[in-house]
Amino acid sequence: MSKYTYIFHGTAFSSHSPKKINILKDYLFFVNSNGIIEKIADPEHEDYQSLLAAYEGQENFHRLADGQYFLPGFVDLHVHAPQWAQSGTALDIPLYDWLHTYTFPLESKYADLAFAKKVYEDLVNTLLANGTTTVLYFATVHKQASLLLAKICAEKGQRGLVGKVVMDDPEQNPDYYRDADAKTALADTEEFILAVKELAKTVKQGVYPVVTPRFIPSCSDEALKGLGELAAKYDTHIQSHCSESDWAHSYVQERFSKHDAAALHDFGLLGEKSVMAHCNFLDDHDAELFASTGTAISHCPLSNAYFANSVIPIKRFMAKGIDIGLGTDISAGATPSLYDNAKQAVVSSRMLEDGVNSALPAEERGVPDSRLSIHEAFYLATAGGGESLSLPIGRIQENYAWDVQIVDTKVPGASLPIFTENEALDDIFQKVMYLIRPEHIREVWVQGEKVHSRS
Amino acid sequence: MSKYTYIFHGTAFSSHSPKKINILKDYLFFVNSNGIIEKIADPEHEDYQSLLAAYEGQENFHRLADGQYFLPGFVDLHVHAPQWAQSGTALDIPLYDWLHTYTFPLESKYADLAFAKKVYEDLVNTLLANGTTTVLYFATVHKQASLLLAKICAEKGQRGLVGKVVMDDPEQNPDYYRDADAKTALADTEEFILAVKELAKTVKQGVYPVVTPRFIPSCSDEALKGLGELAAKYDTHIQSHCSESDWAHSYVQERFSKHDAAALHDFGLLGEKSVMAHCNFLDDHDAELFASTGTAISHCPLSNAYFANSVIPIKRFMAKGIDIGLGTDISAGATPSLYDNAKQAVVSSRMLEDGVNSALPAEERGVPDSRLSIHEAFYLATAGGGESLSLPIGRIQENYAWDVQIVDTKVPGASLPIFTENEALDDIFQKVMYLIRPEHIREVWVQGEKVHSRS
Ligand SMILES: [Zn+2]
Ligand SMILES: [Zn+2]
Repeated sequence: MSKYTYIFHGTAFSSHSPKKINILKDYLFFVNSNGIIEKIADPEHEDYQSLLAAYEGQENFHRLADGQYFLPGFVDLHVHAPQWAQSGTALDIPLYDWLHTYTFPLESKYADLAFAKKVYEDLVNTLLANGTTTVLYFATVHKQASLLLAKICAEKGQRGLVGKVVMDDPEQNPDYYRDADAKTALADTEEFILAVKELAKTVKQGVYPVVTPRFIPSCSDEALKGLGELAAKYDTHIQSHCSESDWAHSYVQERFSKHDAAALHDFGLLGEKSVMAHCNFLDDHDAELFASTGTAISHCPLSNAYFANSVIPIKRFMAKGIDIGLGTDISAGATPSLYDNAKQAVVSSRMLEDGVNSALPAEERGVPDSRLSIHEAFYLATAGGGESLSLPIGRIQENYAWDVQIVDTKVPGASLPIFTENEALDDIFQKVMYLIRPEHIREVWVQGEKVHSRS
Repeated sequence: MSKYTYIFHGTAFSSHSPKKINILKDYLFFVNSNGIIEKIADPEHEDYQSLLAAYEGQENFHRLADGQYFLPGFVDLHVHAPQWAQSGTALDIPLYDWLHTYTFPLESKYADLAFAKKVYEDLVNTLLANGTTTVLYFATVHKQASLLLAKICAEKGQRGLVGKVVMDDPEQNPDYYRDADAKTALADTEEFILAVKELAKTVKQGVYPVVTPRFIPSCSDEALKGLGELAAKYDTHIQSHCSESDWAHSYVQERFSKHDAAALHDFGLLGEKSVMAHCNFLDDHDAELFASTGTAISHCPLSNAYFANSVIPIKRFMAKGIDIGLGTDISAGATPSLYDNAKQAVVSSRMLEDGVNSALPAEERGVPDSRLSIHEAFYLATAGGGESLSLPIGRIQENYAWDVQIVDTKVPGASLPIFTENEALDDIFQKVMYLIRPEHIREVWVQGEKVHSRS
């Protein structure tokens, strides 16, 4: 009898470092009953042949077909689950109008649990189908609907980190959609944390409650302070938006005479388990505060093009030692795909490096040394996301969760442009990153369980 | 007996103007045996009910299912067909190295017609599957392989405009991959033009020869002059690259003491049927020359991020009255999808408007009034492409070719996020533009013939 629950055989791509991938050609991967990769054997391993002989042909042995590859499941660090219903629309207006004309009216509808169920089930299915195995979600202010999202993740096998959104300031939020007051917001958050922790006891892949002040402008001081205390009390993850746009950045500067980073820190909202969306306007001091507290950045390049008035200098922040991952920011980013965002992270970084205005001389146009490679973008979508959440995910290596997507480059009618035998595996990796569509993602596994497949 | 070959019934989106789409809700479309839309009837039309009664149920009557829509087929104004084999790779290096280390060695392989056939068939199938019905192609220097590409378009029903590439300058091109000399280049081009014109006699949707100097740096003066004369003699389309990058722009300035636009004009290469790729560094004078000669721009936003050192100010050039369409620029742009490029056109324009460097004050960061909406990007991918080529394509209206893609927003397992009955059709249009994948493109028609379908 096998001591492993599954044995997989095939070629995997996984980050070695931000700039470099490991290409695990024809490896064996041994997954235990907890869904952890207990052992990996490469073809040079002394026991490889005997292991292969021992397991090949067993029911729990899975060999990839020719043209198929393992990639780590993607980690999406920023999704507004309720906004899935408006994804793709209303991207031509400024943030404030976008919130008040489209987004808040939509989010308020999630008081209706039947509507919430319909959208959330579709969203979780869609993200899994796009290869995303772990998601850090903003839900809405509604405690019940937020819990429902955690339950749907639990059921469908996705690793969900879910926040009930707090937005209690009556000046900044509409009466029809906000917490009644700080006290209620905090009580609801605490109840939500306890309920998700209870739910988590029975969920193999994990679901996690997340303390979630929408962003500083939405929240009273009392709420921000109380949320920092709740996060400390229950040792939860924390998420918010930070220094996203000119408007948001200036708002916080006026209210607290400091940047978002320092203000969040004062409220106890920065730490190892904190992930802040966007962060385009961090200065060096803010960046050092992120690095020293272990706070991560969720970089959402498509959303940034619409709402952040700039391209975040990721390369500079990586050099500071900040943990960084990628986010779709549904629906400010319209796509549910981190492939799309990985590509855009590269494209945006090139635009930052070269600049955009052709009327300027080349040397005044951009910010040198800003470019990211597709290998670095892949790192952000996988290992960087895992590090940001302080979870053992995002890499295909021992002691990490078996969270993988199996991509097929030879889907009939949609094969990738690979025309020569023995094409270099690094070239195939790049083609995968640039050209994979959901229809190529044949299976998705989370914590050793198959949670999505196409036949 | 019907006087129409096909009658279609359903809702279509088609540009009214760059900023505005027509939503043709529940219209009837009558297509004649030449593949032309001979008549359109809206539900308010006095004969609508009697027409519907007359044709409904006939074999040649096609009604869209719930959730399906007609869009014009896309017009891709810039594809390097041979580069499909390297699409997605080698995007991290400068243009010159990219050409000499990757691209020229690859293109030289198309002397082998068996290899050319394999790649070109796959590419044409792939572009059709992505909803692209008309393509302006660069092939290679090889006369036979270029003709083969035209034949494959003819066979598969795509409207192909194909150029045998001219690159004769021995200083700029490697010995293993160039025209032997200007005379040979011109003779081969003339033979190629005649062969494609002969082929075209039997091709319903049309195939067209295109005079194709790769770009000024590749060509001798003699070749450029001779190509201008050939284009005039045979009234062909013309394509090249123009003012793409700092390097290319400076090269031409040094060689001719003028910009690309003026130099191309001197050689007789600007005109109604000319389409120039990129054009990021046109100044106002160049732009006026484009407008006055009827020369079009093919905007390739994804490629530009890698090789053009800037974002082209499309809005400014539209205001000058220049015809503009979109191109994928495979493989400098990795994707075969104009959906991807339409989205990137919006994203890039936002980056031009807002700027990229968050260390600068907002008012010094970008170029005001540069943003494109998704409606404008759709215009570029459809009607703008048709105008650029001076062909009656890119719109769903009378006297235009029936070149359409039928998209399905309700594909099982991949439905778009549309959760309410009676969602506004303009919102659905935006969701289509942002979220459609090839798997949603159920049928593609060119000139009244079905050329692609998924069941
Ligand atoms: Zn957000
Ligand atoms: Zn090109």
